[in-house]
Amino acid sequence: PTGGGKPKPPPVARYNLNNVTITPNPLENRENILLLTPMARFYPEYWDNLLRLSYPHELITLGFILPRTKEGNAATTELQKRITKTQKYGPEKDRFKSIIILREDFEPPLTSQDEAERHKMANQKIRRAAMARSRNSLLFSTLGPSTSWVLWLDADVVETPPDIIQDLARHDKPIIVPNCFQRFWNDEKKEMDERPYDFNNWQDSPTALDLAKEMGPDDILLEGYSEMATFRALMAYMHKEDGLLHEEVPLDGVGGAALLVKADVHRDGAMFPPFAFYHLIETEGFAKMAKRLGWQPIGLPNYKVAYPLALTI
Amino acid sequence: PTGGGKPKPPPVARYNLNNVTITPNPLENRENILLLTPMARFYPEYWDNLLRLSYPHELITLGFILPRTKEGNAATTELQKRITKTQKYGPEKDRFKSIIILREDFEPPLTSQDEAERHKMANQKIRRAAMARSRNSLLFSTLGPSTSWVLWLDADVVETPPDIIQDLARHDKPIIVPNCFQRFWNDEKKEMDERPYDFNNWQDSPTALDLAKEMGPDDILLEGYSEMATFRALMAYMHKEDGLLHEEVPLDGVGGAALLVKADVHRDGAMFPPFAFYHLIETEGFAKMAKRLGWQPIGLPNYKVAYPLALTI
Ligand SMILES: Nc1nc2c(ncn2[C@@H]2O[C@H](COP(=O)(O)OP(=O)(O)O)[C@@H](O)[C@H]2O)c(=O)[nH]1
Ligand SMILES: Nc1nc2c(ncn2[C@@H]2O[C@H](COP(=O)(O)OP(=O)(O)O)[C@@H](O)[C@H]2O)c(=O)[nH]1
Ligand SMILES: [Mn+2]
Ligand SMILES: [Mn+2]
Repeated sequence: PTGGGKPKPPPVARYNLNNVTITPNPLENRENILLLTPMARFYPEYWDNLLRLSYPHELITLGFILPRTKEGNAATTELQKRITKTQKYGPEKDRFKSIIILREDFEPPLTSQDEAERHKMANQKIRRAAMARSRNSLLFSTLGPSTSWVLWLDADVVETPPDIIQDLARHDKPIIVPNCFQRFWNDEKKEMDERPYDFNNWQDSPTALDLAKEMGPDDILLEGYSEMATFRALMAYMHKEDGLLHEEVPLDGVGGAALLVKADVHRDGAMFPPFAFYHLIETEGFAKMAKRLGWQPIGLPNYKVAYPLALTI
Repeated sequence: PTGGGKPKPPPVARYNLNNVTITPNPLENRENILLLTPMARFYPEYWDNLLRLSYPHELITLGFILPRTKEGNAATTELQKRITKTQKYGPEKDRFKSIIILREDFEPPLTSQDEAERHKMANQKIRRAAMARSRNSLLFSTLGPSTSWVLWLDADVVETPPDIIQDLARHDKPIIVPNCFQRFWNDEKKEMDERPYDFNNWQDSPTALDLAKEMGPDDILLEGYSEMATFRALMAYMHKEDGLLHEEVPLDGVGGAALLVKADVHRDGAMFPPFAFYHLIETEGFAKMAKRLGWQPIGLPNYKVAYPLALTI
């Protein structure tokens, strides 16, 4: 009701999925990117890195989901401070198209973000099922009809090449992942060094498939645990110092630290299973589901993104 | 660039999933409904029925997806005509909050909407996988952070009680389906009659589970084919003329003709598998996936919605 005058009719939007292109030249075609980050902790370097992205910010929508913990509250506050600074007071070219912040509506299964606790094998299934639910909530609530690409970027990825979106999209793959490294102080070499970190990017092995066959319907395979040697080929170890930057390898499992997905892959139904899906869960289950839908994930062993400095050595 | 003045900063939306309620009293709590319809054919009676819904239209967003066929083009034109009439020239109370129309970006596997052709068992797996992809595209592109409920309503559902949203929500179930009937001319009784129509709402049987056990990983169970007798308990046959209107039965498989889903079920990751998921596909696979996520589907055998008059008897 707008007083006396005739009220404006509600909007009728008409979108045509065929008009939304998903091409190797997203910049030229002004394609919309949805950049999604589940965030338990706020790293200032994460935001600094976002600001350095060379893809036009006016084509990037940011989506966040944070847990309802003390840590999540603190991260939300920090995140909002930086958002206001950028969107309200920053240079126009820094500002993103729009930003959506979601808070989880379930209790997180683990309250500790302590690395040792987080990575304990017994905790992994519960933890990763919860992570899968967070990713799905974020994805289902933010993907729109005009999104061309979804870039998943974890909150602890603090350094990517500024051209990462253009670089990855250029491969024209449904799902593509760079290699993640963690910087640390190498006390032997007495210099800064880096080591492989993300063990969710892998190619399947007969051993892993055999292990899966023996499992109960709800059991899951986990990577990077000596108790469960899978002998999968890990992309983390495929990196070659003198290799081609854009070398491609096919993958059967992917991690979510940095992951570019054509929006149509998600629209087809590919999500992050919070349950055992072919004995895989979360991002690894996503890769399997995408494959079932006919989309082959690809990894770039020599294209690197960086995690924060290791706190403990 | 807006000339000389300082440009307005882009919007920063902050949503809090916890503030979006999903309650048995959606009307009182002004909860947003997303009404989704895959549409191959436009029935004027479908739109007339939408207009009769008593739930405040300003809280209902409509989403459609139509195939890229001659029939789909014709349906799009008809639909747009009725939309313009309602949204632009109709009474304010008739107008919906917003409307999104998507066109499929893949070729439909079958071009014929002829009923016999559509229902041939050999065609079902391909057809239903395509339907699942359509439903997922529609869902992933339209579900927003402020959606409380998703009402799936097929384009050939031409009659529902006007209070259907309130009536179904009142049960406070994650997934709830009414019973679908088809009207026809009963030549024996010489009067209009109705017969059960939707065979996707069922309770599992030991026979069906045994059949599934013998199947290859990509095979699916189908309901309503004498070639594959499942002995499942079909909700279609549970209807009692003198039964309680709101009687509930638990279900293991559901159809999509009319289906009310709490948005959190979808946000958790429950979608329409276009592949064999526990030997189920599309809406039946959705029910199974929801169950795996801990959400129990419920059917209302005595609460009826109607399909169009049968063209052939
Ligand atoms: N929303 C949400 N995000 C989380 C939660 N736990 C971790 N994260 C974020 O999810 C991403 C992956 O988690 P992380 O703990 O780094 O997993 P790891 O890389 O496997 O050790 C990071 O961006 C975290 O900040 C949680 O409970 N809720
Ligand atoms: N977008 C889209 N919708 C379709 C297609 N085929 C059927 N539909 C719609 O999907 C719903 C279910 O299809 P229908 O043919 O009625 O299936 P049935 O009830 O199992 O016979 C109806 O609303 C149809 O109008 C298709 O190829 N694309
Ligand atoms: Mn991490
Ligand atoms: Mn139908």
